[in-house]
Amino acid sequence: MSYNKTASITAETINPKVKIFDYEPCGEIARHAERLEQEMEKSPGSRPFPEITYCNLGNPQALGQRPITFFREVLSLCDNPALLHRDETRMLFSPCAINRARKIIESMPGRNSGAYTNNQGIRSLREAVANGIAARDGFPSRPEDIFLTDGASSAINLSMQILIRSQEDGILCPLPEYPLYSASIILHGGTMVPYNLSEDGDWGLEIFEVKRCLEEARIAGLTVRAMVIINPGNPTGQVLSITNQEEIVEFCRKEGLVMLADEVYQDNVYVEDKKFHYFKKVARSLGYDENDISIVSFHSVSMGFSGECGRRGGYMEICGFGDDVMGEIRKVASVTLCPNTSGQILTSLAMDPPKLGDGCFEDFMAEKEDIRLSLAKRAKTLASAFSSLEGMTCNKVEGAIYAFPRIHLPAAAIKAAKAEGMSPDMFYACRLLNATGIAVVPGSGFHQVSGRNKATGTWHIRCTILPGEDKIKAMIPRLKEFHESFMNEFRNRS
Amino acid sequence: MSYNKTASITAETINPKVKIFDYEPCGEIARHAERLEQEMEKSPGSRPFPEITYCNLGNPQALGQRPITFFREVLSLCDNPALLHRDETRMLFSPCAINRARKIIESMPGRNSGAYTNNQGIRSLREAVANGIAARDGFPSRPEDIFLTDGASSAINLSMQILIRSQEDGILCPLPEYPLYSASIILHGGTMVPYNLSEDGDWGLEIFEVKRCLEEARIAGLTVRAMVIINPGNPTGQVLSITNQEEIVEFCRKEGLVMLADEVYQDNVYVEDKKFHYFKKVARSLGYDENDISIVSFHSVSMGFSGECGRRGGYMEICGFGDDVMGEIRKVASVTLCPNTSGQILTSLAMDPPKLGDGCFEDFMAEKEDIRLSLAKRAKTLASAFSSLEGMTCNKVEGAIYAFPRIHLPAAAIKAAKAEGMSPDMFYACRLLNATGIAVVPGSGFHQVSGRNKATGTWHIRCTILPGEDKIKAMIPRLKEFHESFMNEFRNRS
Repeated sequence: MSYNKTASITAETINPKVKIFDYEPCGEIARHAERLEQEMEKSPGSRPFPEITYCNLGNPQALGQRPITFFREVLSLCDNPALLHRDETRMLFSPCAINRARKIIESMPGRNSGAYTNNQGIRSLREAVANGIAARDGFPSRPEDIFLTDGASSAINLSMQILIRSQEDGILCPLPEYPLYSASIILHGGTMVPYNLSEDGDWGLEIFEVKRCLEEARIAGLTVRAMVIINPGNPTGQVLSITNQEEIVEFCRKEGLVMLADEVYQDNVYVEDKKFHYFKKVARSLGYDENDISIVSFHSVSMGFSGECGRRGGYMEICGFGDDVMGEIRKVASVTLCPNTSGQILTSLAMDPPKLGDGCFEDFMAEKEDIRLSLAKRAKTLASAFSSLEGMTCNKVEGAIYAFPRIHLPAAAIKAAKAEGMSPDMFYACRLLNATGIAVVPGSGFHQVSGRNKATGTWHIRCTILPGEDKIKAMIPRLKEFHESFMNEFRNRS
Repeated sequence: MSYNKTASITAETINPKVKIFDYEPCGEIARHAERLEQEMEKSPGSRPFPEITYCNLGNPQALGQRPITFFREVLSLCDNPALLHRDETRMLFSPCAINRARKIIESMPGRNSGAYTNNQGIRSLREAVANGIAARDGFPSRPEDIFLTDGASSAINLSMQILIRSQEDGILCPLPEYPLYSASIILHGGTMVPYNLSEDGDWGLEIFEVKRCLEEARIAGLTVRAMVIINPGNPTGQVLSITNQEEIVEFCRKEGLVMLADEVYQDNVYVEDKKFHYFKKVARSLGYDENDISIVSFHSVSMGFSGECGRRGGYMEICGFGDDVMGEIRKVASVTLCPNTSGQILTSLAMDPPKLGDGCFEDFMAEKEDIRLSLAKRAKTLASAFSSLEGMTCNKVEGAIYAFPRIHLPAAAIKAAKAEGMSPDMFYACRLLNATGIAVVPGSGFHQVSGRNKATGTWHIRCTILPGEDKIKAMIPRLKEFHESFMNEFRNRS
């Protein structure tokens, strides 16, 4: 028999790049939480908590955030355009939504939301996005430069696919990092060049530290092609100051680095003294055009006030690549044919929402503000709860949707973790989950601990601020009780 | 200034893999057609045809296919679940759709269609898919083995990512091929091992030919990991006989090859004497279980009677990989978080449609049968129209949604094409587009011409059968007139 053993598929014979990376927000803790949940379904009351609180993933609607009514009405009508011709529809949908849906359907191939669209997305929807950016920033934006995408993740993967040629190509990424970046860089065969954010400086980005990492990488023979900046930060929650952003633009321009600006939390800013600034706007304000600097900005409908993660909508704006490169990017996009139409529609709505004078403007603004104000309140409550615990410090959550407190663990806890073959923060996160049902991601899931990293030996957890205000209020005593008993167990042990 | 020229992004410095592949269904002809369309919008009457007929892409709804009412009603309700609590809804939606939407919403995270779902897709929807497969085939199917995906393309990309380690790994693919395969193999750094389908044998698959290609590849040092089979065929339109399918299963089992079964056209079969058989069912009927053979089957909602391309819904069923490999696949899926929820819902509806006894069963079946019968008619009309032309032969369109006629071009036409630096079939397709507005894909876009290929020197076009019956009737005289004048121009020139 000619059966060829070398060709059979086992964990040993699959693509080794797949095996290297990890993606902890959906990893071990998430799986353990799901197991507990199933166990509790089978034997209710078997655990000392009523339910699992999934604080491991930034998943607003799973944790109770209501979708924006206008968005959903438009989607619903675009799915079933027959409704646009029925009188009863006016009893169920706002005139605003009916008008918008009519306009969108008119611009779709075959006047239908089920056809493949242009690989970059429907032109009229890209125009809506570009106009939204231009109106907000006061600098032009062109629909040719907008790629509608299935969420930001697929846009980030596509960018890595274009930029990375081999392991000799490096991409600068912040540490702690959102682990999509390391995963994507590994899968595309490149090398991640980490730079540390400064916990003592409110998780700010220090140019001298980035420069140090860039120079080390160049000495090691890497061609560093791009710098990832996440603003507002994930998992860190910082909002960069405008001065800091200007420094970053200057640095990338001087060093010939493409800026990969992850700006998916642009609508999640909670502090009065900080504002979100689009990196392209900062560059243009400094007088740099697309001949001076290349910027790819990522955005999505998953976060902000829309919270439409499951719909997989987003865009990237690409400025400063030549026409021939843009042609190649379009070709790569064509391999998966087009982004999903619901996501495309949602992205256009988020960037071109109802305006003053539109019938549904006030309702829309009220829903949006409710969400923002409530998130701001939750951010504050959770950060101060963490800070109040023995041995925990937590920077202000200025933006995004996570608290990222540091835990100063007793030596005995670190030893106990080691004995169980776990990182100390994973040990803490597992204990927390088992005792309270609260699922968080250990800081090591964001690769904060690495050889290059001066923060080695610091331990964190990432906890989303998304559970409703009532749930957060209920979580805090459970958190405190657990932490106290954990510290009691390990504080004085050796 | 330290500006690093080597890091700047030009077509010369991007990932070279991106530059190698082409994807002609969205390529040169499509772009030329779009330019013509824009030109005609600006100056109506400037061309001797009223509109562009996009026969280059299998895009049913763009060409007038109506979506299935039940599917769209359910989607519409899931987008806007507030409707489920309103009396007026019963005037606009069928009770069937209301019940199904209620059931789906109940099973979603946060009872909402906007949350991230499980990376593999919502469990209840995967159960619907697995149950649909099991009921149809009479062999079990498990929700753990179903991955809901953003269309088949992303599933195929994910499979290549898992299987391909280096250029030494080969994947057997049919020629003519659907160019997603070569693109995906190139992007993932592997080597395509083409095998020829037999045009004289109704585009059937000859095992001795596949064996010859496999052996040549092994002699060349490749580890061939998998064999792609597209059934019904794209671009060729053949439906494999059960005997042929059994041979293929035996072959893959003996040679230790993973079967990558592209079965996206399973609902598009138009001839009485052929039936679609799911490859997993064929293997199980032969007595082979998942220890004997690994099969990945791809399906999508883009084709068949649903035609919901733009919604990007689909699934893959993976049988015969170990648990550890499945874990790695889930991890890769988690990098893009989850497939879009509209696509997930549609996939569950297509695999678990209304049943006999459900209120909307008859309407659903009527819509479905209308589409199938009309496509069967169009397939026949178009194939015989092509066959009636001088120097053209066209195999029967047994399934899928394309005619793939062969054109025996006069020597002078081949010479003229060469003078313009085009392949002869591209030359013909461009002339056809300019003269009639009908966009088709030249056979060379499916890589039929290759060094290994015994069919070198044969020329084809792929033309979708999707335009409505009236449009097809109107197309045919234009096609004939063009072809006649083309042949007149070149027949006797030297």
